Amino acid sequence: MNETQANDNTLTETKVYDLLIIGGGIAGITAAIYAARKEMSFAIIAPEFGGEIANTTFVENYPGFESINGRELADKFVAHMKHFNVEIIEDVVTLVTKQENNFVITAYGGKYLTKTLIWATGSKYKELKISGEQEMLGRGVTYCSICDGPLYKNKVVAVVGAGNNGLTSAIYMKTIAKKVYLISKYPTLKGDPILVEKLIKDSNVEIIYSAQPRSIKGDKKVTAIVLNINGAEKELPIEGVIVNVGYTPITEPIKNVIELNSFGYIDVDIKGMTKTEGFFAAGDVVYNPYKQLVISASNGAIAALGAYDYLSTLK
Amino acid sequence: MNETQANDNTLTETKVYDLLIIGGGIAGITAAIYAARKEMSFAIIAPEFGGEIANTTFVENYPGFESINGRELADKFVAHMKHFNVEIIEDVVTLVTKQENNFVITAYGGKYLTKTLIWATGSKYKELKISGEQEMLGRGVTYCSICDGPLYKNKVVAVVGAGNNGLTSAIYMKTIAKKVYLISKYPTLKGDPILVEKLIKDSNVEIIYSAQPRSIKGDKKVTAIVLNINGAEKELPIEGVIVNVGYTPITEPIKNVIELNSFGYIDVDIKGMTKTEGFFAAGDVVYNPYKQLVISASNGAIAALGAYDYLSTLK
Repeated sequence: MNETQANDNTLTETKVYDLLIIGGGIAGITAAIYAARKEMSFAIIAPEFGGEIANTTFVENYPGFESINGRELADKFVAHMKHFNVEIIEDVVTLVTKQENNFVITAYGGKYLTKTLIWATGSKYKELKISGEQEMLGRGVTYCSICDGPLYKNKVVAVVGAGNNGLTSAIYMKTIAKKVYLISKYPTLKGDPILVEKLIKDSNVEIIYSAQPRSIKGDKKVTAIVLNINGAEKELPIEGVIVNVGYTPITEPIKNVIELNSFGYIDVDIKGMTKTEGFFAAGDVVYNPYKQLVISASNGAIAALGAYDYLSTLK
Repeated sequence: MNETQANDNTLTETKVYDLLIIGGGIAGITAAIYAARKEMSFAIIAPEFGGEIANTTFVENYPGFESINGRELADKFVAHMKHFNVEIIEDVVTLVTKQENNFVITAYGGKYLTKTLIWATGSKYKELKISGEQEMLGRGVTYCSICDGPLYKNKVVAVVGAGNNGLTSAIYMKTIAKKVYLISKYPTLKGDPILVEKLIKDSNVEIIYSAQPRSIKGDKKVTAIVLNINGAEKELPIEGVIVNVGYTPITEPIKNVIELNSFGYIDVDIKGMTKTEGFFAAGDVVYNPYKQLVISASNGAIAALGAYDYLSTLK
């Protein structure tokens, strides 16, 4: 926490940053690298650093690294940021409001004032919203194969999701589990062909097409997933369900100060700024057509340079 | 060259690619990595691979590498691309035209047909366009300190340009040359503060502000640069001039098929496509607000994914 920060909620004597970056993934980290090189008065706030790729088994499409473990790449990003003298605040931001010309950032640990901010909080796992999902969370239901996969050694699991995330997850799980069902709601798989090839070359993977999950069954532990396959219900006995059906942007704390587009994402201009002056956004909260590490990094660089340019117009 | 390519300029039997990527820098290479992962029928055409960073001493703002030699990073990008089975055509594209539903790519080595293309040729060094510049090229005038810098060991040189390229160039040259003049046309320096600090901490650098180069003098070799400093002409005795005043996008071959914006750059939509259907662009030819490695890489990823999506709408 910042030393000049008052604990009694008065903001009178509080330092006003030029820039606060909210979010510790690749977008926030890249923004911090660029802000540091511009020697801006800034800090980065996040509960943890490294981002979602830290939960990925392997990354093969970030230029410069042919194939790298997600955690290892995340560590490289964090180390790159820390190589500069960056003020890092480990905290969760719960609300952003406007007060005169500044933004007020409310976190668990205190309030912070800033002239500009970059919202780069990323997204959270999308839920199936079916019966049994929340009830069995941590008892056979997970959203992260890399975190919880090893718990399913020699067991039978279902991976729900036919996009790149589902495929990557299933490719990882087939090396651990006895059998992996991949549940696709489409009549095909949606991920990259190179991942499809990797997935199907072993015999312990079975793909179930045109299947909609209806409920997850179990008592102490998950015992089955109920699917609707082309109109017919089928109960599939399994011991774990890994849900990889996409992401929802994290935007709850900013709903008072910016407008989201009809998809729930943030629109930004060519310099990363929203329609709210001084409010920039980057990464998976932004309406990018594709969700990719290198695109989020680019967003972060643009937003930091955009904030720097914007501040220079204020002086 | 492609085996199915006829040498008599008939295109009748010629293979039609789904995608041709023109340009061997980070934008083209990233596009190739993404196209390979999508298993598209494609090739990449460029006279050389690795891009402009190969001529950079050090890169410190590409996330994942705290500080890396430009050539080394370029080699990593090329190796990443070659890790996939990519068809690489070493050639120079001189003209792009449209023929029914395909683009015809004319290069020195032949013609190629493709349904979509990504133009990612980058930019070339901008010239000062002053007397003596062309005449003394290779005899004391250069646009690339990393290529030619070592020729000026213990000599007196002028670096023209006060942006990040000029600063990076001068930082490199001060370790080689006896004395470095940095010529800024502005009353300040325009580059990142972190680079300014690196530049000024040694005594063999002298910055000349508000100075416009007027001519370069010399006979067999450069002997002086003539500057206009706040209205007064001054002849500065030097042995080399390194010109780092920016870049111009390479767009000559495509002027028949796409429209450039008023700055001479290519405008693209959110998926990297120009107003000409099937024609995508990425990297420094695109109207990006900031010229950065990670932004060009992101452009390349978007254009390849955009081309893939566009092709799927044709079927």
